[in-house]
Amino acid sequence: MIKFCTQCASPVTVRIPAGDNMARHVCDQCGHIHYENPRLVVGCIAEWEERILLCRRAIEPRLGFWTLPAGFMENGETTAQAAARETLEEACATVAVGAPFAMVNIAHIHQVHLFYRGVLTSPRFGAGEESLEVALIGEADVPWDDLAFRSVKVCLERYFADRRHATFAFHTVDLSPLPTA
Amino acid sequence: MIKFCTQCASPVTVRIPAGDNMARHVCDQCGHIHYENPRLVVGCIAEWEERILLCRRAIEPRLGFWTLPAGFMENGETTAQAAARETLEEACATVAVGAPFAMVNIAHIHQVHLFYRGVLTSPRFGAGEESLEVALIGEADVPWDDLAFRSVKVCLERYFADRRHATFAFHTVDLSPLPTA
Repeated sequence: MIKFCTQCASPVTVRIPAGDNMARHVCDQCGHIHYENPRLVVGCIAEWEERILLCRRAIEPRLGFWTLPAGFMENGETTAQAAARETLEEACATVAVGAPFAMVNIAHIHQVHLFYRGVLTSPRFGAGEESLEVALIGEADVPWDDLAFRSVKVCLERYFADRRHATFAFHTVDLSPLPTA
Repeated sequence: MIKFCTQCASPVTVRIPAGDNMARHVCDQCGHIHYENPRLVVGCIAEWEERILLCRRAIEPRLGFWTLPAGFMENGETTAQAAARETLEEACATVAVGAPFAMVNIAHIHQVHLFYRGVLTSPRFGAGEESLEVALIGEADVPWDDLAFRSVKVCLERYFADRRHATFAFHTVDLSPLPTA
């Protein structure tokens, strides 16, 4: 939530600017419009032989649950570089990033999740600062009921399904809000 | 460039927050960290029989040059919805969005461009507010020397190449800064 203008420190108001059709945080003092856009979360399915790297989260949200290495893409990097960086940071593992595998839209939280496939350059890995533990896990041992995020679940479901057919597509999935009752 | 804190209006400083490894605009008064992330630009290759919609830009940058309908993705929509919305806004055309076709990373300007294929629901179109003119253009008539953006050029090159083989892949391309001298 933007309360003050980043350019002149005046309070902002929420209104539709001239020539626009969406409400923005606008500064009536200096005229600056504060655009807000969806963020990319980029992750990696890091493979070693028949297993993949999963990380158990050491931070909220979903502390203690399992996830693929993933995080917010940073300015100045490509999506593939983001996938490699997150794998290094969260799983202390070096990966040769391959093709993008799945894109998951989560419009209600303003995020697009993009998962690459990648191959570990060696079976060396460890728990980064944001992970309690990291493991190479085969399909039979995936903790389906203890996954941190729905995007990771749908990505892994499609990954193992594709792997059984020995052909990998690029998947797109839209997630809607879960029912609250 | 962020000069003042969006939460308390104090001047911000640029430094690496504790536990982080990248410089951010941080408020030393209230502690708020202003994260900045790449933005998604989403567009559409809108097909009608053997031709596609191109728009001649009515606004800067690249006023007067030709582009695919495309623009910044908005909060609350999916990437496919963004592709349809931009086609409606810039080309006054309704499109059934199909598969994503190309993702172009432009890391030095903090953008990821994503282009879908789509099929016009009718051959009706027109110039939206940001377009001087809109046309259905066949491969032989693409104004290659008057395209607005490199991402559009690489997308269209791959599109027509794929079409000649009657099979469409999902393409990823990284663009580097152009030499300045």
